[in-house]
Amino acid sequence: MTRLYDDPASFTEDMVAGFVAAHPRYVRPVPGGVVRSRRGRQGKVAVVTGGGSGHYPAFCGVVGPGFADGAVIGNIFTSPSSEDAYSVGRAADSGGGVVFSFGNYAGDNMHFGLAVERLERAGIRAHNVVVTDDVASAPVEERSKRRGVVGDFVVFKVASAAAEEGYDFDEVVRVAEHANDRTRSLGVAFDGCTLPGQDEALFHVPDGKMGLGLGIHGEPGVSERDMPSASELAKILVDGVLAEAPEGATPRVTAILNGLGATKYEELFVVWGTVSRLLAEAGVEVVEPEVGELVTSLDMAGCSLTLTWLDPELERLWSAPADTPAYRKGNAVTVSEPESTEVVESAPIDEPIVVVAPAEGQATAATVVRALHSVADALRDAEDELGRLDAIAGDGDHGRGMTKGSAAAVEAADAVLAQGVGPAAVLVAAGDAWAAKAGGTSGALWGAALRSFGDLLPDDRPATAEDLAAGAAAALGAVQRLGRAEVGDKTLVDALIPFVDALKDAVADGSRGRDAWQQAAQEATRAAERTAELTPRTGRARPLAERSVGTPDPGATSLALALSEIAGVLTGEGVH
Amino acid sequence: MTRLYDDPASFTEDMVAGFVAAHPRYVRPVPGGVVRSRRGRQGKVAVVTGGGSGHYPAFCGVVGPGFADGAVIGNIFTSPSSEDAYSVGRAADSGGGVVFSFGNYAGDNMHFGLAVERLERAGIRAHNVVVTDDVASAPVEERSKRRGVVGDFVVFKVASAAAEEGYDFDEVVRVAEHANDRTRSLGVAFDGCTLPGQDEALFHVPDGKMGLGLGIHGEPGVSERDMPSASELAKILVDGVLAEAPEGATPRVTAILNGLGATKYEELFVVWGTVSRLLAEAGVEVVEPEVGELVTSLDMAGCSLTLTWLDPELERLWSAPADTPAYRKGNAVTVSEPESTEVVESAPIDEPIVVVAPAEGQATAATVVRALHSVADALRDAEDELGRLDAIAGDGDHGRGMTKGSAAAVEAADAVLAQGVGPAAVLVAAGDAWAAKAGGTSGALWGAALRSFGDLLPDDRPATAEDLAAGAAAALGAVQRLGRAEVGDKTLVDALIPFVDALKDAVADGSRGRDAWQQAAQEATRAAERTAELTPRTGRARPLAERSVGTPDPGATSLALALSEIAGVLTGEGVH
Repeated sequence: MTRLYDDPASFTEDMVAGFVAAHPRYVRPVPGGVVRSRRGRQGKVAVVTGGGSGHYPAFCGVVGPGFADGAVIGNIFTSPSSEDAYSVGRAADSGGGVVFSFGNYAGDNMHFGLAVERLERAGIRAHNVVVTDDVASAPVEERSKRRGVVGDFVVFKVASAAAEEGYDFDEVVRVAEHANDRTRSLGVAFDGCTLPGQDEALFHVPDGKMGLGLGIHGEPGVSERDMPSASELAKILVDGVLAEAPEGATPRVTAILNGLGATKYEELFVVWGTVSRLLAEAGVEVVEPEVGELVTSLDMAGCSLTLTWLDPELERLWSAPADTPAYRKGNAVTVSEPESTEVVESAPIDEPIVVVAPAEGQATAATVVRALHSVADALRDAEDELGRLDAIAGDGDHGRGMTKGSAAAVEAADAVLAQGVGPAAVLVAAGDAWAAKAGGTSGALWGAALRSFGDLLPDDRPATAEDLAAGAAAALGAVQRLGRAEVGDKTLVDALIPFVDALKDAVADGSRGRDAWQQAAQEATRAAERTAELTPRTGRARPLAERSVGTPDPGATSLALALSEIAGVLTGEGVH
Repeated sequence: MTRLYDDPASFTEDMVAGFVAAHPRYVRPVPGGVVRSRRGRQGKVAVVTGGGSGHYPAFCGVVGPGFADGAVIGNIFTSPSSEDAYSVGRAADSGGGVVFSFGNYAGDNMHFGLAVERLERAGIRAHNVVVTDDVASAPVEERSKRRGVVGDFVVFKVASAAAEEGYDFDEVVRVAEHANDRTRSLGVAFDGCTLPGQDEALFHVPDGKMGLGLGIHGEPGVSERDMPSASELAKILVDGVLAEAPEGATPRVTAILNGLGATKYEELFVVWGTVSRLLAEAGVEVVEPEVGELVTSLDMAGCSLTLTWLDPELERLWSAPADTPAYRKGNAVTVSEPESTEVVESAPIDEPIVVVAPAEGQATAATVVRALHSVADALRDAEDELGRLDAIAGDGDHGRGMTKGSAAAVEAADAVLAQGVGPAAVLVAAGDAWAAKAGGTSGALWGAALRSFGDLLPDDRPATAEDLAAGAAAALGAVQRLGRAEVGDKTLVDALIPFVDALKDAVADGSRGRDAWQQAAQEATRAAERTAELTPRTGRARPLAERSVGTPDPGATSLALALSEIAGVLTGEGVH
């Protein structure tokens, strides 16, 4: 278990501070992560990796010459915010644009996607290469839905070496995607890991059993089997990965036998003895393999085999030198051109453009801000209870994420309200701040929902009941587009859809806005309670679906709570 | 826990095979360990590290240019045999002699000591540098009794870099001992690790507690404390090590914050943040620190801080490049002179010189061999029971070690008996084989006991009762000299002393040899049973002293069993 921490809430910040203190030759901190201590040569494409932390040496351990230009560092097992990714990308850019590469997880896709949009708006070319190597996470026909695991390491390395060699932006993207196309992983887990400050592991595998294909955050795998011998495991991994050999590939591969944290080097070498024999027997030639810890999950017990089918280009890039805190190869320090010693300022963040609204808009904005305050207060009071609900099937961070996100939203909203803006600007600022500070999937969803809702509130007249209903429908659309949750998946959508439907119906029946909202919020509360009967949508944060039956969904519960608080403010202010 | 293995009995061999398969560019196997795949330049001093395995990347992970020339690889947490060390030393030698460096443990001292003697007899200069950095394992006045832990890594690195630079033999020894003099470590453990094939950890630390100074094999520490925060731990470690700063040292150090296996990188960085701040506040400047896993103990939970006070020579050698499977620094591959590509044969083992004995001596030798067969059979039958006894306070390998050792002794004895030798030559061959194959402390003790006993058996006349008594006394002397156990320490000495005393008394009273041996063996059996009342001598293999009260000592038990078997053979053969 994870035992060493000061304040669990600042674990990631403390970890980054210690990491930077240990490796000042390689990295310097910027908001949201780290970049090389010395910027790459002018015009070089910057390769920026990232994702949630807890996977060291992935991702910040591989920043340095020959490897990544920067790493975006989210909280443990939590995607970084779009602001984090934007900030690191901006700081890493040397004028050649930014290629982000990360594993395929919903939260990362959202936040890196938003970061690419922001970088492009700031005039920096940017693109995401999403790694999808985990053969256990989706069938081969749906490779794009597969999770990214240790293949991240190969794709980052190849893309980084290409950028170091002087490939242009499109060529870096091409070879990174090519590396991903040629890379397959299969993993097993023997036991879970413990998040800092928690007493219980995120999940458990029963004694004497092995989870085949279990994800690195405990995502459901393919099957649970009896614990095999080392040789049997080697055969399972080799057979599983070779069965997915890409078409037309030569039988020349590189391989990573990766330990997740508590499955140690000696055991990995015992397994590797058989893996290397089986690969040789299958006619596969292995080039510069790695046996060790490259992508961990705190102290999770388990391991995985990754193969990348090489061609001469991939082999050259895989073998190229690198010099980073956790991974060194060959004579990297002499390879890159002399680096600039320019000290780069912390990444500037986009200044919002302030549009002063008419008095009606400012009045609506003030109501919105009061509602946000009420929501933030209620979420803070409910933090422990929401955390408890979330811990049953997830990682227990929902309460903390909602508290951090709503507090940041209030602060940002207060600041722009004082500048005289209307409700849309308030909600855009609040939504961005929420997503930036909360991180994780729910942070992204709440950020998008507030933005979309705000877009439909008028600046130049009081908001009507119809405006509220249209805004709610837009927020629902944004949430569904980003989160892809469907009815019955046991997410906040299961409370949001009944709310939006009830609001629309009440408004169509002629209710005033405050009354319609009140009725719809009550409907959302009932719907949130009914989620106790559902089995949750499985996925990253919810490896233990069945455990939550009988418990309402934390996301639906916090949404219903927020909607009720807003109803109280609307009623108290006599909103029509 | 350690989960991945095929046959636990061949875990180390399987591990070495996989390690070599993963890193053929760096290492090749020789009997007893590995050496660089390409020999160092002619005349270079060879630095050979080693010890029990289970500590990767220590020790075999650091073989390569700029670092070690070879590593002797014992079984998990068990010292390699003298034959292992001799074989690796011989293979690593490039004509400049061999400097062994290892942590200070009784078994390692014995076996590496014997290996040095054998290498010197073979005309190869050799010396042992014993690392003693663990401040918790003995008071400062007895530094030479301290255990070696992560300081191993610093001493090996410095000695290796010196050898690579061209230092001569005496200078390599000098700077290695100097590095040890300047190095201090303090460690903590949060939980034990599990040996391959075992269901239970070697030891446990109670939940919420921390063992301060607990050794890397579970040796007793200084105290058990409540689990501290990361910052509190950092202060404990920094204060503990700084209190031991060597006299006259400059405030410039290198540092290793080492994880034992299950205490992961993220946690280490959190601790390092405070360690680096506290060191700075104490006016200590840190040069090229390492934060990660350098000396592990399988999946033990815990960490340690090591400081080496630098002078310009030590700093240069610590910073020098290295290129090994698990540790790379700078541009090592260009630093060493072009290496010979000579393929080195597996190390030849000394051929024993055969001296044919007179008929009387051959007859005694035949009796000795029959007694050895009887002992080996009995030990094999008792293997499980001896293992069970040993598991109560130790690592449960006593039965296996005795079975392997005695089987090897029988095989060697049979071979030399067929050549017509006398009892001394039989027992020397048997003793060497026992020590070589059994490994561990008991292997070394039995090997020495057989050799010493044999030295006093005549070749040219039948052995008398007085010969047996003198031989037994010599064996006891060898065991006490090597093992340093005293009466009441709950070791085989507690059965051997009563045996030797009873044998001497019976012989003095005029008993025939077979009768005296029979009486003395019975006394040994009673004495072995009485060891149940003792608390064992604590140490490497026996972290859980108090647990064994009520259980007889496995070493005393197996000794008494062997002595009884010999009594049976002597009686059956009518020995006078």
